[in-house]
Amino acid sequence: MAKRKSLQDDACPVARAVDLVGDRWSMLIIRDALDGIRRFGDFQRNLGVARNILSDRLSALVEGGLLAVQPASDGSAYQEYVLTAKGESLFPAIVALRQWGEHHLFAAGEAHSTLIERVSGKPVAAMQPRDHDDRILKPGQALVKKVVSK
Amino acid sequence: MAKRKSLQDDACPVARAVDLVGDRWSMLIIRDALDGIRRFGDFQRNLGVARNILSDRLSALVEGGLLAVQPASDGSAYQEYVLTAKGESLFPAIVALRQWGEHHLFAAGEAHSTLIERVSGKPVAAMQPRDHDDRILKPGQALVKKVVSK
Repeated sequence: MAKRKSLQDDACPVARAVDLVGDRWSMLIIRDALDGIRRFGDFQRNLGVARNILSDRLSALVEGGLLAVQPASDGSAYQEYVLTAKGESLFPAIVALRQWGEHHLFAAGEAHSTLIERVSGKPVAAMQPRDHDDRILKPGQALVKKVVSK
Repeated sequence: MAKRKSLQDDACPVARAVDLVGDRWSMLIIRDALDGIRRFGDFQRNLGVARNILSDRLSALVEGGLLAVQPASDGSAYQEYVLTAKGESLFPAIVALRQWGEHHLFAAGEAHSTLIERVSGKPVAAMQPRDHDDRILKPGQALVKKVVSK
């Protein structure tokens, strides 16, 4: 992937975020890594993506500090890609995309994978921004305060 | 943008979601639309994106049902792109990306735009998935339950 520097100095955190992870494969690699996938071949099989694209995206995520490369946990010659704290912190963003997809991109009754609580087995509840009184915050109730140019 | 059908039938809601909005410009168009931008020229100025790319992404978002085209609100000959309920429902995903960016992609003290509550002026609190007892749910405490193949 060609380097695209233009948004990395943007004053908007959304712009910087999508500069790093704003492509389908990067997001799906993070999704898979959250599911415990660690090896190139396993990402490749699960995503069905071309090896050169996968290699490119993994390198970018390592360079961006979202994944770290480490020796295989079983002592084999493989290397593994593991989420850093920075990468793992994308969990809420992945959950938000999942919940949006569940709600809007499946027909009624159409089967989809579900995110459940490991211990209770209950589906993870819908996640929404909340105001300081813990009420759901709708888009129109929020406002972006821009950086004042000096 | 070439049609990429491969993930639209995927059983994973994250995959279907990124199939529609998993590129930087689509996400930033949704961000801008949430901020109230409605016209081609305003998106173009704000994003600094090439007109053909913007046109392509807007069309895909209209086709995907995230934006609707309507006559200009001021009676002029312009057309406007307004969020549908489906598009507006990406608000939590945009907020999640924003909060991740704020936390991980700015140096200490570096200025960034902030999302505030319109009425109170308070910054919007960090959003996290919660378990059924309203405790923060960490990635390792959740599990994806796949669709069982028939």
